[in-house]
Amino acid sequence: MSNDDSYLAPGFAAAIEVAREFGRVIAVAPLTPQSGRSQAVTMTEPLFLELQHEEEGLQVYSLSGTPVDCVKMAFDHLLVGQKVDLVVSGINHGSNAGINVLYSGTMGAAIEGSFYGCPSIGLSLTDHSLDADFTATKHYARQIIKSVLENPVEEGGTLCLNVNVPDIDPMDIKGIRVCRQCRGIWREEFYPHTSPHGKRYFWLSGAFDNYEPDCEQTDEWALANGYVAVVPVQIDMTAYNRLPYLEHILK
Amino acid sequence: MSNDDSYLAPGFAAAIEVAREFGRVIAVAPLTPQSGRSQAVTMTEPLFLELQHEEEGLQVYSLSGTPVDCVKMAFDHLLVGQKVDLVVSGINHGSNAGINVLYSGTMGAAIEGSFYGCPSIGLSLTDHSLDADFTATKHYARQIIKSVLENPVEEGGTLCLNVNVPDIDPMDIKGIRVCRQCRGIWREEFYPHTSPHGKRYFWLSGAFDNYEPDCEQTDEWALANGYVAVVPVQIDMTAYNRLPYLEHILK
Repeated sequence: MSNDDSYLAPGFAAAIEVAREFGRVIAVAPLTPQSGRSQAVTMTEPLFLELQHEEEGLQVYSLSGTPVDCVKMAFDHLLVGQKVDLVVSGINHGSNAGINVLYSGTMGAAIEGSFYGCPSIGLSLTDHSLDADFTATKHYARQIIKSVLENPVEEGGTLCLNVNVPDIDPMDIKGIRVCRQCRGIWREEFYPHTSPHGKRYFWLSGAFDNYEPDCEQTDEWALANGYVAVVPVQIDMTAYNRLPYLEHILK
Repeated sequence: MSNDDSYLAPGFAAAIEVAREFGRVIAVAPLTPQSGRSQAVTMTEPLFLELQHEEEGLQVYSLSGTPVDCVKMAFDHLLVGQKVDLVVSGINHGSNAGINVLYSGTMGAAIEGSFYGCPSIGLSLTDHSLDADFTATKHYARQIIKSVLENPVEEGGTLCLNVNVPDIDPMDIKGIRVCRQCRGIWREEFYPHTSPHGKRYFWLSGAFDNYEPDCEQTDEWALANGYVAVVPVQIDMTAYNRLPYLEHILK
């Protein structure tokens, strides 16, 4: 297990609680918050690993790196030669639907997990606050983890899920919707300030511009309409539909 | 234009030289090296922007953030209301073929550029050294930029290219191959050390495990066989082939 809000995040504790119902848990999470760190990997600094907590069936480590570093540390150092059944990342404090899948450290860890040939699940709740209510997310995480473990994909296949839960009364959630990634991008605003030393600096703060708010197939629509959104994520970034065009213009 | 090796990198100067042949250049690049920063975005720290160099038809800024921050700064602050014809990222010192597309800061910037509705090109040379010879990369960059500008994709469509040039004698390069992303992952080794204060730390260092070294359709094959590899990159991460399976197991 990993996440991007650090090993101390309440959402991480909630996810660990659910995962322990299924077996032994090895958790490696960032020492400090790593929101928006995407698939970033640390190559120019050393990584400090510390065992923070240990009890029967559970080990929690912190690592002074990114979510992806954590997953690599688990597979290629702590668990070498051991079979891993599932990678769980989260529960993130905040949505990772739509284009967020590309920026998200939570999904960076989940995507990295799927490289190692076991299913992986990124869990997010669309509530950024520290005291978010993870009741519904835990309920659906339990259901999804169980389904994935009981229904393995074909030999050599990969499975990576981006699961987002809406921040509404758990009783009002209508169920799970299997979706595709919504089209749209973040448009940023840069708020300028000047430091006491006369240096100009900016705070980046944006809003999501949804290109297809009425499309019922998207994860953003599902969340806006009271559903848990589940999007399967791939790791082949090739835009196959562009190959003929390129063959044409570059020959 | 942007990159991930910082605004001072020789590969950046080489790319700017080529881009200026086509028109006015606005360059925003990281203040410090940001290799492996992927699609990371900076949300918890302020960003310092400085105009480092200006002459007729060229402005070079440094930004104290990631490659993606640089692209956002250009589109959503410096160039608001202006038409951008092309985003160029690189030339990266090192390969971004195969799975590297997901870790690469160079490609993070290129992918981000494509969000804004103009074509984007990430350029990389498979030579990490500071004194790499960019002659061949400049030659092919010129050809590809020209082709892309002269052959726009359909209205509303996006185009993002991952261009990698092999580190061989420029005269031995056989030409351009349009490819798909090679399957395979990095397997890491963690080298342990202990600090004078008794703290254990690790250096991450890996090797690429190519799952299909003999497949002529991949970018890794093209590079290994003396070709310039061009892979079109998409931004929809949905694994459409997994939708029926998920509908089945989650209902």
